[in-house]
Amino acid sequence: MTSVPALSPVPTLSPATRVRRTPFSDRVEACGVTAYTVYNHMLLATVFRSVEEDYKHLCQAVQIWDVSCERQVEIKGPDAARLTQLMTCRDLSKAKYGQCFYAPLVDEDGGMVNDPIILKLDEDRFWLSIADSDVMLWAKGLARGYNLDAKVFEADVYPLAVQGPKAEEVMATVFGDKVRDIRFFRFEKMAFEGHEMVVARSGWSKQGGFEIYLDRKELALELWDQIWAAGQAFDIRAGCPNAIERVEGSLLSYGNDMTMGTSPFDCGLGKYVNLEADIDFVARDALQREIDQGLQRTICHLLFSEKLNTGVFENWSVFDKAEQQIGKLTSGCDSIRHGAFLAIATIAKEYWQNNETVFVQTPFGSREARIASFPME
Amino acid sequence: MTSVPALSPVPTLSPATRVRRTPFSDRVEACGVTAYTVYNHMLLATVFRSVEEDYKHLCQAVQIWDVSCERQVEIKGPDAARLTQLMTCRDLSKAKYGQCFYAPLVDEDGGMVNDPIILKLDEDRFWLSIADSDVMLWAKGLARGYNLDAKVFEADVYPLAVQGPKAEEVMATVFGDKVRDIRFFRFEKMAFEGHEMVVARSGWSKQGGFEIYLDRKELALELWDQIWAAGQAFDIRAGCPNAIERVEGSLLSYGNDMTMGTSPFDCGLGKYVNLEADIDFVARDALQREIDQGLQRTICHLLFSEKLNTGVFENWSVFDKAEQQIGKLTSGCDSIRHGAFLAIATIAKEYWQNNETVFVQTPFGSREARIASFPME
Repeated sequence: MTSVPALSPVPTLSPATRVRRTPFSDRVEACGVTAYTVYNHMLLATVFRSVEEDYKHLCQAVQIWDVSCERQVEIKGPDAARLTQLMTCRDLSKAKYGQCFYAPLVDEDGGMVNDPIILKLDEDRFWLSIADSDVMLWAKGLARGYNLDAKVFEADVYPLAVQGPKAEEVMATVFGDKVRDIRFFRFEKMAFEGHEMVVARSGWSKQGGFEIYLDRKELALELWDQIWAAGQAFDIRAGCPNAIERVEGSLLSYGNDMTMGTSPFDCGLGKYVNLEADIDFVARDALQREIDQGLQRTICHLLFSEKLNTGVFENWSVFDKAEQQIGKLTSGCDSIRHGAFLAIATIAKEYWQNNETVFVQTPFGSREARIASFPME
Repeated sequence: MTSVPALSPVPTLSPATRVRRTPFSDRVEACGVTAYTVYNHMLLATVFRSVEEDYKHLCQAVQIWDVSCERQVEIKGPDAARLTQLMTCRDLSKAKYGQCFYAPLVDEDGGMVNDPIILKLDEDRFWLSIADSDVMLWAKGLARGYNLDAKVFEADVYPLAVQGPKAEEVMATVFGDKVRDIRFFRFEKMAFEGHEMVVARSGWSKQGGFEIYLDRKELALELWDQIWAAGQAFDIRAGCPNAIERVEGSLLSYGNDMTMGTSPFDCGLGKYVNLEADIDFVARDALQREIDQGLQRTICHLLFSEKLNTGVFENWSVFDKAEQQIGKLTSGCDSIRHGAFLAIATIAKEYWQNNETVFVQTPFGSREARIASFPME
């Protein structure tokens, strides 16, 4: 058992060119960001006032999020579709312009490389809006090795999210009423200051909202400022993906709940594994073998009976009543909705039984929790 | 020109499983780390007391550095040598067990992917001790695409560095006098608590020292504690790569001074581009083309006439007397040795002339600086 990190005083994050700022960073800092993380070698805000206060505001008003760190890996050229399909187990053959495809990227061992949203911009052009790993390097390696005619690069695109129940009102003020017609996980090109860019109804919260794929950096502050002005009537604040809201909303986080050591099946993403489709992807054999041998693990929520007043900074081991280790807890927080600690864990499939009691080795000792379905009902 | 980041109050770094702790993190925190960065999805300390105080101590005593974030990408199997060579422009054909090979990894466009030290552990087994990018994904992509028989994975290895003029004394106390026989950029297997592990005379400072490639996590705290005890006679402190010492020492940093947008020639690494060798690497055509078309850029130091009381958090543009942009400044600090701001910059080759005056657009306005050779004489 590792000890609790000594977080007082809390270490700061050293600035450096390598930890890239974004076109919106000046505004994020002017709005009083108090904590950052690093995501795809770029700054991502994690807290403004407090995680709890940010949460309550997100659930009732509207926030503007600098999610530039959702880098776009652009794949372009005659073999772009083939290369993109090689990387994911999800069948992209019927993908159409205007759809956002959540797609696990899986390696030849069946391990998850990333879980981007894929946007098909044209027959020969895709954006992979990635989580935190250098997908570009994998794509470049595959393209070179398979001798594919596809260019792979990080596009000069900086997503800005508008999230919360009032997001549509704010977006309609800036982009016009037609933004209301965009359906969930669909995108349209929308004009801003005469420049067309991709706007999707998506975002890493369950409060509703949009993501604007800003592909003209020079418009960044003007875009922020117009959204900010439009949001004044709705108590807009700067915000960021919220640790509590995303766990309550059963949103998985790559690097936390999914890693190269977990398969899409382990993560409850089996519905995106299209082995029945006539498509070529590098993980096919490994994922078929996993099915043939019988799936081993499943993802679940664990609900504790009390608050723990901490986050999860390393995996915590999960045990059954016989003190047998059955899995690991990968994310968690004191849930506001449940009034107790709520977690995401991966456990041996045979142990999955709703409401079953398990024991978690926390930094403060063993604690009881109950298994709950994922996503939570 | 972007504005200076508002760093008061300085944002903290949010802990999360995704930003991995190391087997030494408890000791690093007990020793009072005050700032972190994230490097290869892992914590790396950047400051303990202050960058200046840490610098002075490093230059006169000995420090223990948790550099676990120097992840080891292990390449193993019949095609391991071929795959490793594909990734780098440096001729590895004569690499021998016991040598540390500094090797730029370069993509098919001639852009730098990383600049690891490569350790040949056996004819069919290599470690790439990497800087901050997911080299493993690129290696896996190439291995799959070229259908190579080589396993690529992140080894369970956590480097610990002992750096400073007293490093050899401390190491000899822990590992015995034979550690003194290890030459610069060579490694030997050394026993600790009955377990043999790789110990190299290397490290990311110019003060001398060693890196211990701990490959048995359970020994981490015992190793730290024995070094700590042995160091008491030499005023040992916990430390980390130092922003001032590394710029003064002309040590390049991947992600800062080198990126996928720069070639090894741009970074002054031409001597590691072995186009004359009969070896196969993916960057060959691009690097040959760069030579044929004439090299465009060079790396240099820029020495200012005064201190600036800041670091470099975004590239600063460099101009000649005619206000023509000639390059960009990528790292810099107030040098203690020079009593003025010292930087690393990439400039158009035609402008390289020692002692030439240039103008740098800093966050505080334009400042004069003089070009100095790299590495500094």
